[in-house]
Order: sequence, then C-alpha cells, then structure tokens
Amino acid sequence: MLEGITSEAFILGCSAIGAGLAMIAGIGPGIGQGHAAGRGAEAVGRQPEAQDDIVRTMLLGQAVAETTGIYGLVIAIILLFVRPLLTAYLNL
Amino acid sequence: MLEGITSEAFILGCSAIGAGLAMIAGIGPGIGQGHAAGRGAEAVGRQPEAQDDIVRTMLLGQAVAETTGIYGLVIAIILLFVRPLLTAYLNL
Amino acid sequence: MLEGITSEAFILGCSAIGAGLAMIAGIGPGIGQGHAAGRGAEAVGRQPEAQDDIVRTMLLGQAVAETTGIYGLVIAIILLFVRPLLTAYLNL
Amino acid sequence: MLEGITSEAFILGCSAIGAGLAMIAGIGPGIGQGHAAGRGAEAVGRQPEAQDDIVRTMLLGQAVAETTGIYGLVIAIILLFVRPLLTAYLNL
Amino acid sequence: MLEGITSEAFILGCSAIGAGLAMIAGIGPGIGQGHAAGRGAEAVGRQPEAQDDIVRTMLLGQAVAETTGIYGLVIAIILLFVRPLLTAYLNL
Repeated sequence: MLEGITSEAFILGCSAIGAGLAMIAGIGPGIGQGHAAGRGAEAVGRQPEAQDDIVRTMLLGQAVAETTGIYGLVIAIILLFVRPLLTAYLNL
Repeated sequence: MLEGITSEAFILGCSAIGAGLAMIAGIGPGIGQGHAAGRGAEAVGRQPEAQDDIVRTMLLGQAVAETTGIYGLVIAIILLFVRPLLTAYLNL
Repeated sequence: MLEGITSEAFILGCSAIGAGLAMIAGIGPGIGQGHAAGRGAEAVGRQPEAQDDIVRTMLLGQAVAETTGIYGLVIAIILLFVRPLLTAYLNL
Repeated sequence: MLEGITSEAFILGCSAIGAGLAMIAGIGPGIGQGHAAGRGAEAVGRQPEAQDDIVRTMLLGQAVAETTGIYGLVIAIILLFVRPLLTAYLNL
Repeated sequence: MLEGITSEAFILGCSAIGAGLAMIAGIGPGIGQGHAAGRGAEAVGRQPEAQDDIVRTMLLGQAVAETTGIYGLVIAIILLFVRPLLTAYLNL
C-alpha cells in the first residue's frame, strides 16, 4: 500500500522524472561537439597556419549544437524550480 | 493505495513526464549540428579563402537541423504551460 | 486504490506520455540534416562555383529527412488537441 | 485496485502510449535520408553536369528509406483512429 | 488488485504498447537504406554511364535492409488484429 501519497507529491515526483528525462537531450551536444573538437584538432594539425579560422568556425558550430542541450536544461529547471504543474493544481 | 491522488494530479504528473520525453528529441540536432561544425572547421582549414561561403552553408544547414529540437521544446512548453489535456478534462 | 483517478483522466494522462514519446522521432532528422549540413559546407569549400546547386540539393534532401519528424509532431498534436481516444471513450 | 479506471479506458490509454512509441521509428529515416542528402550535395559539387541523375538517385533511395517511418505512422493512426483492440474487447 | 480492469483488457492494453515498441525496429532500415541512397547517388555522380547497374544494386541491397522493418510491422499487425495472446487466455 502506498497510502500516504498525496496529489501534490505525485505531481512533484513525476516532475523529478520529467526533469531527468529532459537532461537526456544532453547526449546529443556531447557527441556532436566532441566530434567537432576532433575534426577541428585534426584540421589544425594539417593546417596550423589556419588555426584561428578553424577554431572560430568550430566554436561557432559548437555553440549552435549546444542549443538543444540548453533547451533540456531549461525545461528541467522549470520543472524543478518554477513547477507550473503544481501551481496549476493548487489554483484549480 | 494511492488514495490521495486526484484525476487532475494524474494528468499533470503525466504531463511532466511527457514534457521530459519530448526534450529527448534534442539528441538529434546536437549530434547533427556538431557533425556540421566539425566538417565546417575542417573545410575552413583546407580552403580559408572560402570561409564565408562555408560558414553560411553550415549555419543554413544547422538551422534546418534545429527544427525538430524546437518541435520538442514547443510540445514540452505546451504540456507545462498550456495544459490542453487538463483543460479537456475540466471541460468534460 | 487509485480511487480518485477517473477513466477519462487515465486516457488523458497516457496521451501526455504518448505525445512526449512521439517527439523522440525528432532525433533522426536532427542527426541526418546536420550531417547534410556538414557535407554541404565541405562541398561548398571545395567547389564554391557550384554553391547554388550544392545548397539546393542539400535543402531538397533535408526536406525529405524532415518528414518523419513532422509525422511525430502531427501525432503529438493530435494526442494533445484532437484526443480521438477520449472521444472514442465518451462515445462508448 | 484501479477502481475508477474501466477496462475500456485502460486499453485506450495504453493505445496512446503505443502510438507515441511507434513514431520513434522516425529516427531512422531522418538519419538515413539526411546522410543521403549530404552525399548527394557533395556529389553535385563534384559533378554538377550529372546533377539530374544524382538527385533522382538520391530521391529514389530516400523514398525507400521513408517506408519504415510510414509503417510507424500507419500503426499510430490505427491505434488512434481504428482501435482494433477496443473493438476486440467490446466483442468478447 | 486491479479490480476495475479485467484480464482481457490488461492483455489488450499491453498489446497496444507492444505494437508500438515493435515499430521502433524501423530505425534500422531507415538509417541503412539512407546510407545506401547516399553512396548510390555518389556513385552515379562518378560513373553516370553505370547508373542503371548502380540503382539496381542499391535497390536490391535496400530491399534486404527493409526486412527487419517489415518483421516489426508484421508483429505489430499480429498484436493488433490476430491477438494470439488474448486467444490463449480465453482458451485457458
């Protein structure tokens, strides 16, 4: 028996799971940016004189790849600290 | 017994999990855009004189790759803040 | 006992999870389109004079890759806003 | 006891989850077709005079890669709108 | 106890989830066939005079790659329309 679980606890518990799931998005930028770092390092090895241009392009592209990881982080933080679903429940 | 959990709380709790699941879509753009960043950096190393064209093509293609990550974010935000399923339940 | 959860709430809660799951499809276009962006940028670096043809082919192929991500979005929107399963239940 | 949830609601709720799961198949065509788009763009850059043949082959191959994504969509639509499992239950 | 849900409904509900899970197999053919499409397009660019042979080989290989996606579809259709598990239960 799970007699003691209230509705509020259920919403908050599910929010914890949701926040964790959202962070799984971080797999993507991690792989992609690492790939970019590898290719960038390789390119610098081949053309050291173009190091500045290579690194700038790598960082620009990595910044774009970061975005979906940040989306996941934002949703997780909203679930943990803003808690719109609990607010919605309390306002019913 | 889960005596204390109401129908509204159940829908909201599931919405938290659904929002988290939707963010997992972000894995894709992260990997793909990072790949683009790597290829772009490499290409700039080989043809620095074509840097502008390379970076423009890279960013254009990355913007297309971002779309499905944004779809996931939109669905998560709808689940957290618009809550159409709770509204549907309350309107029954 | 889940005494407080009605049948309608159960269907709607599961719909929230289903909508989140459907968005996971977005992983694919994200990876694939990013790959296309990388190859496109590389090709523009090597043959800048063919930039228009390269970018057109890249965007055409990316548009095809987008389709399954849009399928997932459509199913999620149906689950959240059309709710055919709830309608089916109410019509029993 | 899930006293408030009827058998029909349980089947319909699980159908929502099943429909979402089926859409995950869309990951594959997204990755594969994007890869094809990248190779196609690259090939057009190298042999612009063969652009028509390259694009036709790319689109033909992408159409084949689309099939499993469409299978997933068909199963999701069956679960949401045809509901054979509910029919089977009602006919018991 | 799941008093409100009958055994038959439980089997049918789980069948809906199983059908969705089976479709995830479609990820594989989607990736593989797209890869084949990319290599095929590339090859046509290099040897346009061999286009027929290239496309025939690509389609033959893609047809083999399709098989596991079709297996998943067949299992999903069996779960939804043949329902051997329900039959087994009713014959107990």
